[in-house]
Amino acid sequence: MQGLHITADLFDCSATEWLAAEPAALDALGQALARQAGLAVVGSRFHGFGAGGGVTGVVLLAESHLALHTWPEQRAATLDVYVCNFSQDNSAKAEALVAALLARFGATRTQVQRLRRGSRPPP
Amino acid sequence: MQGLHITADLFDCSATEWLAAEPAALDALGQALARQAGLAVVGSRFHGFGAGGGVTGVVLLAESHLALHTWPEQRAATLDVYVCNFSQDNSAKAEALVAALLARFGATRTQVQRLRRGSRPPP
Repeated sequence: MQGLHITADLFDCSATEWLAAEPAALDALGQALARQAGLAVVGSRFHGFGAGGGVTGVVLLAESHLALHTWPEQRAATLDVYVCNFSQDNSAKAEALVAALLARFGATRTQVQRLRRGSRPPP
Repeated sequence: MQGLHITADLFDCSATEWLAAEPAALDALGQALARQAGLAVVGSRFHGFGAGGGVTGVVLLAESHLALHTWPEQRAATLDVYVCNFSQDNSAKAEALVAALLARFGATRTQVQRLRRGSRPPP
């Protein structure tokens, strides 16, 4: 269960059409980019907060998950890509997925944090 | 969109019946504990990896999300509780939800990390 969790907070996004997209469109985008990065989609759920109100959603992966929250009124979004390295090191796939999403949203200012997870702490 | 993201990696869990529960049972548990913590559930999706293989799932919140992955064969699980403080500070609710999940899974060894997210970085 050791793995990499990347969080990315995006500001000043130029692709506001994606930030304000319907939940179904962001669901399809998240699934497509996850597959392009080589990750295995096992389910998804997206929810819209109404006209102009943004979307919150998650793509469940065999490797863990992608989460996505948009704030179109602030031209902002937050992303999580968490992958476990159960049978192989999926870190490069996680980085590729984050990079693809940053490009799609046209983020010009970002705060990216990386956590190593799942290592048993000492007694 | 400023908020708190708590990750918790759980080891040596005593409540293996919860780690090995059906996706629907973990979905109901996640939703119930989120509501008990005062958070607003707007959707969920859980996926099981077959007999003995664990569950991956997410409860979508108006405040952001709860994610949960179980490894019953390792008596382990990983959790994420991410809340944004759009209209009020939801940090205490996030901490309460993590504490409730740790108790339910009977974790005896944990690695908890806390990230502050959503602050615009300087130019």
